[in-house]
Amino acid sequence: MAGALKLGMVGGGQGAFIGAVHRMAARLDGHWEIVAGALASTPERALASGEELGLAPDRIYSDFATMAQAEAAREDGIDAVSIVTPNHVHFSAAQAFLEAGIPVICDKPLTSNGADASALQSLVDSSGTAFVLTHNYTGYPMIRQAREMIERGDLGALRLIHVEYIQGWLSEDLESEGDKQAGWRTDPSRSGAGGAIGDIGTHAFNLVSFTTQKQVERLSAQLHRFVEGRRLDDNAHVILDCSGGTKAVLLATQVAPGYENEIRLRISGTKGSIEWNQSTANTLRFSLLGGAPQTITRGGPTAGATAAASSRIPGGHPEGYLEAFATLYTEAATLIRGGSAPLLPTVKDGVDGVKFVEACVASSKEDGAWQQL
Amino acid sequence: MAGALKLGMVGGGQGAFIGAVHRMAARLDGHWEIVAGALASTPERALASGEELGLAPDRIYSDFATMAQAEAAREDGIDAVSIVTPNHVHFSAAQAFLEAGIPVICDKPLTSNGADASALQSLVDSSGTAFVLTHNYTGYPMIRQAREMIERGDLGALRLIHVEYIQGWLSEDLESEGDKQAGWRTDPSRSGAGGAIGDIGTHAFNLVSFTTQKQVERLSAQLHRFVEGRRLDDNAHVILDCSGGTKAVLLATQVAPGYENEIRLRISGTKGSIEWNQSTANTLRFSLLGGAPQTITRGGPTAGATAAASSRIPGGHPEGYLEAFATLYTEAATLIRGGSAPLLPTVKDGVDGVKFVEACVASSKEDGAWQQL
Amino acid sequence: MAGALKLGMVGGGQGAFIGAVHRMAARLDGHWEIVAGALASTPERALASGEELGLAPDRIYSDFATMAQAEAAREDGIDAVSIVTPNHVHFSAAQAFLEAGIPVICDKPLTSNGADASALQSLVDSSGTAFVLTHNYTGYPMIRQAREMIERGDLGALRLIHVEYIQGWLSEDLESEGDKQAGWRTDPSRSGAGGAIGDIGTHAFNLVSFTTQKQVERLSAQLHRFVEGRRLDDNAHVILDCSGGTKAVLLATQVAPGYENEIRLRISGTKGSIEWNQSTANTLRFSLLGGAPQTITRGGPTAGATAAASSRIPGGHPEGYLEAFATLYTEAATLIRGGSAPLLPTVKDGVDGVKFVEACVASSKEDGAWQQL
Amino acid sequence: MAGALKLGMVGGGQGAFIGAVHRMAARLDGHWEIVAGALASTPERALASGEELGLAPDRIYSDFATMAQAEAAREDGIDAVSIVTPNHVHFSAAQAFLEAGIPVICDKPLTSNGADASALQSLVDSSGTAFVLTHNYTGYPMIRQAREMIERGDLGALRLIHVEYIQGWLSEDLESEGDKQAGWRTDPSRSGAGGAIGDIGTHAFNLVSFTTQKQVERLSAQLHRFVEGRRLDDNAHVILDCSGGTKAVLLATQVAPGYENEIRLRISGTKGSIEWNQSTANTLRFSLLGGAPQTITRGGPTAGATAAASSRIPGGHPEGYLEAFATLYTEAATLIRGGSAPLLPTVKDGVDGVKFVEACVASSKEDGAWQQL
Repeated sequence: MAGALKLGMVGGGQGAFIGAVHRMAARLDGHWEIVAGALASTPERALASGEELGLAPDRIYSDFATMAQAEAAREDGIDAVSIVTPNHVHFSAAQAFLEAGIPVICDKPLTSNGADASALQSLVDSSGTAFVLTHNYTGYPMIRQAREMIERGDLGALRLIHVEYIQGWLSEDLESEGDKQAGWRTDPSRSGAGGAIGDIGTHAFNLVSFTTQKQVERLSAQLHRFVEGRRLDDNAHVILDCSGGTKAVLLATQVAPGYENEIRLRISGTKGSIEWNQSTANTLRFSLLGGAPQTITRGGPTAGATAAASSRIPGGHPEGYLEAFATLYTEAATLIRGGSAPLLPTVKDGVDGVKFVEACVASSKEDGAWQQL
Repeated sequence: MAGALKLGMVGGGQGAFIGAVHRMAARLDGHWEIVAGALASTPERALASGEELGLAPDRIYSDFATMAQAEAAREDGIDAVSIVTPNHVHFSAAQAFLEAGIPVICDKPLTSNGADASALQSLVDSSGTAFVLTHNYTGYPMIRQAREMIERGDLGALRLIHVEYIQGWLSEDLESEGDKQAGWRTDPSRSGAGGAIGDIGTHAFNLVSFTTQKQVERLSAQLHRFVEGRRLDDNAHVILDCSGGTKAVLLATQVAPGYENEIRLRISGTKGSIEWNQSTANTLRFSLLGGAPQTITRGGPTAGATAAASSRIPGGHPEGYLEAFATLYTEAATLIRGGSAPLLPTVKDGVDGVKFVEACVASSKEDGAWQQL
Repeated sequence: MAGALKLGMVGGGQGAFIGAVHRMAARLDGHWEIVAGALASTPERALASGEELGLAPDRIYSDFATMAQAEAAREDGIDAVSIVTPNHVHFSAAQAFLEAGIPVICDKPLTSNGADASALQSLVDSSGTAFVLTHNYTGYPMIRQAREMIERGDLGALRLIHVEYIQGWLSEDLESEGDKQAGWRTDPSRSGAGGAIGDIGTHAFNLVSFTTQKQVERLSAQLHRFVEGRRLDDNAHVILDCSGGTKAVLLATQVAPGYENEIRLRISGTKGSIEWNQSTANTLRFSLLGGAPQTITRGGPTAGATAAASSRIPGGHPEGYLEAFATLYTEAATLIRGGSAPLLPTVKDGVDGVKFVEACVASSKEDGAWQQL
Repeated sequence: MAGALKLGMVGGGQGAFIGAVHRMAARLDGHWEIVAGALASTPERALASGEELGLAPDRIYSDFATMAQAEAAREDGIDAVSIVTPNHVHFSAAQAFLEAGIPVICDKPLTSNGADASALQSLVDSSGTAFVLTHNYTGYPMIRQAREMIERGDLGALRLIHVEYIQGWLSEDLESEGDKQAGWRTDPSRSGAGGAIGDIGTHAFNLVSFTTQKQVERLSAQLHRFVEGRRLDDNAHVILDCSGGTKAVLLATQVAPGYENEIRLRISGTKGSIEWNQSTANTLRFSLLGGAPQTITRGGPTAGATAAASSRIPGGHPEGYLEAFATLYTEAATLIRGGSAPLLPTVKDGVDGVKFVEACVASSKEDGAWQQL
């Protein structure tokens, strides 16, 4: 595509899952071309991964620092970098590119600890360089529909938020069996203080703030490690008090056998309720006090402008996870081209997410004592 | 039906909801004939209600005390009485019949406070008279299937229990508008200390103990009153620690507009998970680690003996709420005829339920402080 | 219940399925008491079955003819008889009771052939005695809701009707393995000319006429016998032209492994569509041109008067197959007491059903040639 | 991506729907770069559309003939062309590129009439140039799973196929209101003899042949035009006899208000059944005789190799319509690079589809007379 932006990538080499997702998301709408990368933490894998992607040899880097400098120096340097490493690398990688003046698209959670998160926020603020956090579920048209409806007051004053993210893949000790994904996601030195709460709980938390625009004021959390020997939590039960008197419950688990990535968000206000499930991502259940439940469909007659703007194909033909992710990349392109993309998650959302994880960990250590946020 | 047992009823006159349910449940399988009643709290309504049911004039009573004595004295006196009044009457009515040697079938919650509950338990224990608590959801074949599977170890060691009971009918201040059901259910003098937590939270709590046979050891509860002026909670978020390290979350709400009686129970163990929803009551989702989710159907090839014994018609033809309720009445008949009915909820379950409500209220008053059970 | 009507039963003894269903349906709402029966085709089983039901010895009959005469002669004789035998007995049994002046409640299909059906219709008409055909699915509140909406014009002029009834239980040759149900249902001498088309196809056909009040003008049918050695069809594909230009397709199968009793009815008109599934019997999908699909729930705010009048308990608490069946028995009581029950299936519906089966058989024999109805 | 293939496009300019779909599908997996196009039927719109896509000025063509010659002559000419025009242009456009030795990816139906279809097949066969027909639903992992299971015999010998494709968007006369999509799809000169049967019925037909590998031997069809003034059918009811005694019913409608693109495929054999719905595209219902229904999920433990090879992301994260479409483009790249892509729809499938449409039209004209295929 003419004017496709040039994208670099840090992390996401062979064997990674999320790197490939970012690349598909970047390509779908034609706004990005992947041209450079420091794709793995060893030079050999970085090279092999770069070649597999067909990158020009001089744009396959063995470390992100070199890449940031080299790309900044090129006339045809990258327009942005995607950082898709394990969490503990996010900060230093983002720093390198921001300092080189290169916009950053960063996977979540923002960093592996709160100090890094705050420092990164300062860096972003002082640099004036674009920074996008890929809380990808915010790209789902029906999630945006929910936000639009809540903002407009369709549900009235919000009373209840019940959100859950249910997986089963860590029901056993995969990290001891050499599973790469399980390895870093259960390793405090790479993931930070949160296990399930960081990996998927932050997504659930972000869905709450994105759709309701509510602040979480305090929380009480129980984190559990069900699998023996596991070093981070694999389950979280969190009670949240939100601004304006809204009460919430957040569940995040990785030990429910037979559940893949079940996300459910249910929100009730004085006038109505909405409910969304990832497994039926193209529809939103909406019920008004005294009315029949309705099914708002992505391409249907009662979906609003926000949903339509985040949607590609007619209703009934399902869009999925990659399309939602692609919407973030498309809006990142808009942003970097100087346009407006008000729904894109920011470094501030990332800081909130890391603080949320740390507050959950602290609360859980004190048997659920309330933590202010 | 030959040998149909004779049933009396206290409460459940004109305008009541649950009395009619009990009568349909009692009739369905042909084991009961309703022959006597003190159906309302005023003599006029008691008379009118009794006539409407076609009771013999001399068996329409204006108060339960008279009824207990009179029926005990008759040669053809009732074989059992159903108590379906507001909660605060349960204790004294049950006492009257137990003391007269008449078996009692009592609606839940057992009583409106813990002292009454304990006293009633003592009474039942010392009297040796049969006592059944109608925690009707335990009659669902698929709930019994869940219990059987958990007992057999199909799920392995239990880790997680997520249960919720979601209603919307009290989203507004119906009690001020003269709604009879809303009136007594939100009135502490008739319902006891619990609103939503007593009315529907106890059902959810009972489903947990029934299916898992776990004890709740301690809990942390948040009760809310969202509707201004309401005197009891209309929402509850409860964290529970169960015996054996199982962790649970219980949600009970009456202020989610557009939800009727959504009950969902999801339980995960080391080996598998089950999930049940009242809206699809005839099926049970079952997934094993490493296997595809299966749908166990009430009449299908993988449902067990317990489910079959609680079921009337072939699979695919839905049984519902009344059939589940009727199973309790049928088993009560078995019990009173001298047989065994090990799955029937007992006075002990009732005591546990009342203690649960009081623990939730106490915890909530102290901002979620843990309460031992 | 005072004034409960007295019911006799022909057929439905030990080992039968549908007899027990009729008895539960008769009991549920308290309008019927079962007092007499000729429950089986051999005197021994008739006696054993009657004793099991607790019938008085003098009201256990070994044949229906004796029963009709004896009951007609008693002062406390039955108010109606339920005929729940295999199809080929319907006619003669109904004749016996009608001639004795006793109202008849008869299972479907009306008779095992069209000549009997017409003769029975004449008998009913000339006798002036009440006759009810238990097309039980018409008792579902949401089916009645559909009828009400269509009658009111909510869907506009009807264009399309797609109905299907899918079972799998006859996927194998159960009739050769001694299965009693399979035995008579696949035996032309007891079932008549139709297998699946008579057993379940007539239900689907009746749902179409009940909800739309359309006449089927002609049809083209393909009947199949997939199981080797089977004597009647186990699958039917039927194309129907209805009055007013409405086009329909009816599928009935008993050889789809893993399907229990899946009934789906979808109707579209110029303005909207409705869809109902037995597996979610308490809801009706309703979509208007240009609107979001809505879920009408049995007890919900958008269900109409007809549904409410056929419903017992609040929404969200599922009613099922037996409740729908019970509604027919309650309305039969109304009818026999002299009231009006306009929704009850009549002998005319039964004649239509038998003609439908015979037209399907004739069409199929001629490779789908159109048959006028 | 290194070695991304160069794609040209005919049709799919501004205002088209399917062109944008093809472009997203081509981009998703990184195997294609769009470099040339004759995107619209007028030079002005062709130019504007090409510029919007960022094509180089010398590769924006005003007609496909010029494009085919020019691209064939370039050293960096396109590796394939996508033809996404209305149906009547497919033949001549495909001819131009095939004769220029350029592989063709063509939207369905193959052509607007059977003569063209046969001629095109001859052309493809004689040219030896790659030709892919984008029957995109065959790209769904769960559809491929179905095919794999049927081929392996999981369902036993097939008895029944019920397929339907239900839309509502043509419930009114949109073609008279200037709707571009409705315009050409209801215009015989551009669509050919089939309306709904060609537009969506061919997809349903293709799903049957793809999953079962059965031949349709004869059919009886009823095509209807419900909207007054419409020139092509907007509804089709088709009975099909397949090879090996399998019996099928195919429904395709565009006049069911409130239905978007509901596709359901249910297949039963002697041993088991499968069912797939586009609205839950990531799962496949599978039931064996005597077993509980199972849910095979796209990324789950019981999905097979074929599904995995057509899938990008872990289970639970839904893939949708575009991903299925992209799989065809990825396999087309494999094919053009000299590899094997045995699941890709071919010109033969296209010929079968056109013959199917013409047979339906012919049968319907004779009131459903059987047509051999």
